[in-house]
Amino acid sequence: MNKIQDIQQFLQDENLDAALITTPDNVFYVSGFKSEPHERLLGVMVFKEAEPFVICPLMEVPDLKASGWNFEAVGHQDTEDAWEVLAAAARKRNVSLEKIAIEKSHLTVERMERMEELFEGVTISRIDEKLNSLRNIKSEDELIKLRKAAELADYAIEVGCKEIAEGKTELEILMAIEFEMKGKGAEKMSFDTMVLSGPKTASPHGKPGSRKIQKGDFILFDLGVVYEGYCSDITRTVAFGEPSEKQREIYETVRKAEQAAIDLVRPGVKARELDKVARDVITEAGYGEYFTHRLGHGLGISVHEFPSITGTNDLELQEGMVFTIEPGIYNPEITGVRIEDDVVVTADGVEVLTKFPKELKIIEA
Amino acid sequence: MNKIQDIQQFLQDENLDAALITTPDNVFYVSGFKSEPHERLLGVMVFKEAEPFVICPLMEVPDLKASGWNFEAVGHQDTEDAWEVLAAAARKRNVSLEKIAIEKSHLTVERMERMEELFEGVTISRIDEKLNSLRNIKSEDELIKLRKAAELADYAIEVGCKEIAEGKTELEILMAIEFEMKGKGAEKMSFDTMVLSGPKTASPHGKPGSRKIQKGDFILFDLGVVYEGYCSDITRTVAFGEPSEKQREIYETVRKAEQAAIDLVRPGVKARELDKVARDVITEAGYGEYFTHRLGHGLGISVHEFPSITGTNDLELQEGMVFTIEPGIYNPEITGVRIEDDVVVTADGVEVLTKFPKELKIIEA
Repeated sequence: MNKIQDIQQFLQDENLDAALITTPDNVFYVSGFKSEPHERLLGVMVFKEAEPFVICPLMEVPDLKASGWNFEAVGHQDTEDAWEVLAAAARKRNVSLEKIAIEKSHLTVERMERMEELFEGVTISRIDEKLNSLRNIKSEDELIKLRKAAELADYAIEVGCKEIAEGKTELEILMAIEFEMKGKGAEKMSFDTMVLSGPKTASPHGKPGSRKIQKGDFILFDLGVVYEGYCSDITRTVAFGEPSEKQREIYETVRKAEQAAIDLVRPGVKARELDKVARDVITEAGYGEYFTHRLGHGLGISVHEFPSITGTNDLELQEGMVFTIEPGIYNPEITGVRIEDDVVVTADGVEVLTKFPKELKIIEA
Repeated sequence: MNKIQDIQQFLQDENLDAALITTPDNVFYVSGFKSEPHERLLGVMVFKEAEPFVICPLMEVPDLKASGWNFEAVGHQDTEDAWEVLAAAARKRNVSLEKIAIEKSHLTVERMERMEELFEGVTISRIDEKLNSLRNIKSEDELIKLRKAAELADYAIEVGCKEIAEGKTELEILMAIEFEMKGKGAEKMSFDTMVLSGPKTASPHGKPGSRKIQKGDFILFDLGVVYEGYCSDITRTVAFGEPSEKQREIYETVRKAEQAAIDLVRPGVKARELDKVARDVITEAGYGEYFTHRLGHGLGISVHEFPSITGTNDLELQEGMVFTIEPGIYNPEITGVRIEDDVVVTADGVEVLTKFPKELKIIEA
């Protein structure tokens, strides 16, 4: 239970008595228990010098234990005040509870006020940054899951390509992909699957609909799956029928930009340098105004997490960081193209998790 | 812009200067603008005596205006501090900003601390209950959307019934339903669609999977759609092949319980009385221990909202309240059955929004 020790070390270093962690993704990270409590109370409470506990709805206690949680499991029923139950479990430990860390970017004002009431005179501080920095560096165990999630995403693109046919709608292709993924053991898609065709490829946040595939379309797939709690996120853009010269030029520009960023990944390089090297390729090709978003985002338990790969982030890459690299050109007159891979920073370079080929795939129309 | 006036009236009554509303569902309710900002700032700020504004990411300003928002639209860019932009827009109004109401059950501690920094000396109070009580009573305009959402849910059940065939998996049926719904103009499903068969019907939170339909199964559909921002939620349980006597008995008990609760709906009746009348039917039939959840929940912009229809809620029903009635019996030895409708409290009784028939439907096996 390494992660508990990491939190306890933080409490030592900061001279705090306890931490209450309530973001579902962070609860999963620290305890191994994945649950979506909606409005109910779910949390893991870690003490500087006492046994931690997870508090969750009573009916979920069996799932909590099945997830491998070996410390106390505190269940609360709908007829109880969950915060009273939490406070009782904490007080039972007979340790000081004067300084408690919470996730200030997650806990609501109402819940903090409840804590201030229950732990009279408590001083509340932040644990957000500590959790982010722990989650920023993936363990080998986490990488195994991320590799598997990426492998499923590769396969999803393969399924999508096979489904492409004249007259089929974006939604039909999307459904075929998601159906196949559920059969393959993906818990769920990591976000709403995107299948966009023709002019819709030029809309980075477009929604799949009943548009029918036609000859000359580019088709953009952006999707990912959750595997054992970890996310993948891949984008590929393929051609249906022979592409025009301009379409090819845009595709090859994005491909070159993406590769340039991948080639630069290694410990010590700054996040913003990745964004710049990709953006420079696109700008030099004359398409700078059509690359309208950041280069990438961190990936792990959440599909968007730290680090953010933007043009202003001075963060130095470290071994074990995992993020996407996903430049795009969105030219409504010609086509949109985005290519996205998931990468890990290794001791001396990069491991690319998603492996679906990136030469322009032309599907016979 | 009625809802703005309602909030202004509240500010008058409570002697507050302004309210900042940030829950996406409440922003939609108050402003008509539906948006999922993720970690970005989205809010509507209403003043006792000045023009309200919506603050949102700059790229969403055109959508905000298209949604019919006629007051100021304040856009913020990723390179700006959104809270500084908000504070500047508020200060520009030259009104007192000493007492501001927020949704304490939603706003994070971090954001509140930011407000305390920007509006020095501010006193922060709650607007949560006011918003709940406003949303509790649906307008005719909202009812029109809820009726349409319910109509689509009825159709989804029809589609599901047609898809049932020996050897088909729960997931295949689910996909067929969702595919058809997207084609019919449903924005999305209002929650993860449930198609459960055979023994899985006895698990109120079961997940659809690759189990194949077989003769003698009951099949339980629980689903809903979002139509113009409003949700529906229906459950029907049907038989594949001739049911056993015990299965029939359970079905008819649930049906009778559901009807008893519907028949009791009118202004002045207490929420808990509905739960009791349905539970009594089930208990008298000897299945009390298998009805393990509350009778229903409020429905509107959120798929779970106020009022909660539980055995302990003393709330008196009022005209315009909308909620589900969904008793169930979950007997793992025989079958699970749940029947759920969406109802509106009318001036002198009830309007049932979902209309799919409730006589036990037996699909030929």
